[in-house]
Amino acid sequence: MSENNLVISIDAMGGDNSPRVVVEGVALAHKNNPDIKFLLFGDEAKVLEEMKKFPQLKSFCTVIHTNEYVHNEDKPSQVIRNKNTSMYMAIDAVRKGNAQAVISAGNTGALMAISKMILKTMQKIHRPAICTNIPHKNGMCVMLDLGANTECSAVNLAEFAIIGNILAKHTLEIERPRIALLNIGAEEMKGREEIHQAAKMIKNTHLDLNFIGYIEPHQISEGYADVIVSDGFTGNIALKTMEGTARLITGMLKSTIKKSILAKIGLPFLLPIVFALKKRMDPRKYNGAMFVGLNGLSVKSHGGTDALGYSYAINNAAKLVRQNFVQTIRDEVEHVDLDELSQDILYDVY
Amino acid sequence: MSENNLVISIDAMGGDNSPRVVVEGVALAHKNNPDIKFLLFGDEAKVLEEMKKFPQLKSFCTVIHTNEYVHNEDKPSQVIRNKNTSMYMAIDAVRKGNAQAVISAGNTGALMAISKMILKTMQKIHRPAICTNIPHKNGMCVMLDLGANTECSAVNLAEFAIIGNILAKHTLEIERPRIALLNIGAEEMKGREEIHQAAKMIKNTHLDLNFIGYIEPHQISEGYADVIVSDGFTGNIALKTMEGTARLITGMLKSTIKKSILAKIGLPFLLPIVFALKKRMDPRKYNGAMFVGLNGLSVKSHGGTDALGYSYAINNAAKLVRQNFVQTIRDEVEHVDLDELSQDILYDVY
Repeated sequence: MSENNLVISIDAMGGDNSPRVVVEGVALAHKNNPDIKFLLFGDEAKVLEEMKKFPQLKSFCTVIHTNEYVHNEDKPSQVIRNKNTSMYMAIDAVRKGNAQAVISAGNTGALMAISKMILKTMQKIHRPAICTNIPHKNGMCVMLDLGANTECSAVNLAEFAIIGNILAKHTLEIERPRIALLNIGAEEMKGREEIHQAAKMIKNTHLDLNFIGYIEPHQISEGYADVIVSDGFTGNIALKTMEGTARLITGMLKSTIKKSILAKIGLPFLLPIVFALKKRMDPRKYNGAMFVGLNGLSVKSHGGTDALGYSYAINNAAKLVRQNFVQTIRDEVEHVDLDELSQDILYDVY
Repeated sequence: MSENNLVISIDAMGGDNSPRVVVEGVALAHKNNPDIKFLLFGDEAKVLEEMKKFPQLKSFCTVIHTNEYVHNEDKPSQVIRNKNTSMYMAIDAVRKGNAQAVISAGNTGALMAISKMILKTMQKIHRPAICTNIPHKNGMCVMLDLGANTECSAVNLAEFAIIGNILAKHTLEIERPRIALLNIGAEEMKGREEIHQAAKMIKNTHLDLNFIGYIEPHQISEGYADVIVSDGFTGNIALKTMEGTARLITGMLKSTIKKSILAKIGLPFLLPIVFALKKRMDPRKYNGAMFVGLNGLSVKSHGGTDALGYSYAINNAAKLVRQNFVQTIRDEVEHVDLDELSQDILYDVY
């Protein structure tokens, strides 16, 4: 694909402060990616109003008016067949080939449901997954599934390992990503049966995956693995626990500083530390969860992010499109018959 | 029970630096609880050697020699029937009525397996659980199960809610603890089926529980609930994620301070902050996970804790014994037939 053709489809109405944050995010992303063209779906008057601040965007953005949009409280089942929402139309632009990726900061459940319905799951994939990059002490790792699949079979987990491997190679530029299954112990018999079976399958794929076994949650931040695989329930629990704990500790740090007279005197020394720490932990840098396993790239931005966060989601999506990510997954999954592997392992067990 | 009779049974050989840390922990706990008597099970020569440093302990401690002890790498199935280990004998002292609680910093799986075998699960309880207190921004909450039960039915989860309610009343002195089920969303249909069914059961127990619905992991640290209920797999994942994230952020804080020249000049201002933060987050204060649902109190101390941490585990155990915790659970569970409730709810569903 020529880079000149890179088009990203945007649900301009998704997110807490849309379309303002979305348009500002597009403007920021445009600075680093002057070759990307954008399709902005949403309330034309509102979007154009926001675009006035960035006259340079005019030649890179096409605004497509939509009368409706998906609300945060809408149930996926209610909105999945409404073809007039900005979210639906933005996703549909990918199916039609008018864009190579879609981004929305709107309702996650609706985005997943509509993306699945429109873009369809890849032929060889059983279940698409939500993936993101998270920080550890020496860099970043890929984590999936983060909530698309509440319960997962061994085959699903093995697929996530394959997808995660490709993601880590492409987004983190790690040659042989270390893949681990999230579990509550390192011993072979710890945890749930589907995890044990998935471990056997991943070892037997013949894809030459660098599978390192189980990882316990406290080891994630130590940087023991580059790809962390789990079912969507467990992954979502782990991700949200990280978020809560980080907030608890930074809150404690702030209130400790507030209470201390010494700290008040020493504020000029403290502030640079607090800012540096904040910068390193900045969640905006990790914005942009990808729905993978679909015939098209759908990216979820955090609903409450700001323009910088939104631009990171765009950058991530653009990077994956440039690396032909969807086709790469399709090719890699083509090589391995997980259903057959699953049969083999079941024979093994009984 | 008269406080003069309070006896705690100790596996003196469990933990990373046993019996030194154990004996030092007993000495510290003795200061605050001069009425507690201790039975110390372990290598007599080694234990007595450590006790020389604390001559005041002599009249409060009885040392019972054991030739063997459970190692960290032992599988529960290998050690469960070995009656000669310090762990086995310490637990057995509770069954015999010689002590009202047992504490070990040794192998968790073995401690759970032997405790279950010797003390037996309460008649009305289906599955014992591992519980602990964890900090949030305004105080503490009870969390269970933390790893005893990898998979749980709705009945198991409802029982954990009842147990957790009693724990929060007794250990945290909260009159009407707010009980929540750990889940990946606040909406009724989010998460797994057993969680939805457990929610119905908890509402219908007639125990007048203060059930507030689902809690998402990032809300734990906000102090939204006093009792967090989950299956042992999910609880263990959340707990270990908290541990890892806390370590990641404090590590980042340290390395940020190290890198900053300003911080080096301002060290006199910074150090009190770092110490105050460390003190507030001190995991030793939360040491002592309880196995509840058994006919006797069995407490697991962190294997790597120091004497102060060990003494916290003893204090916690003593508090529960004084409050007649085991009998209270037995009485409360007596009132409610969860099996019947479970039938009702299944009829409801189909």
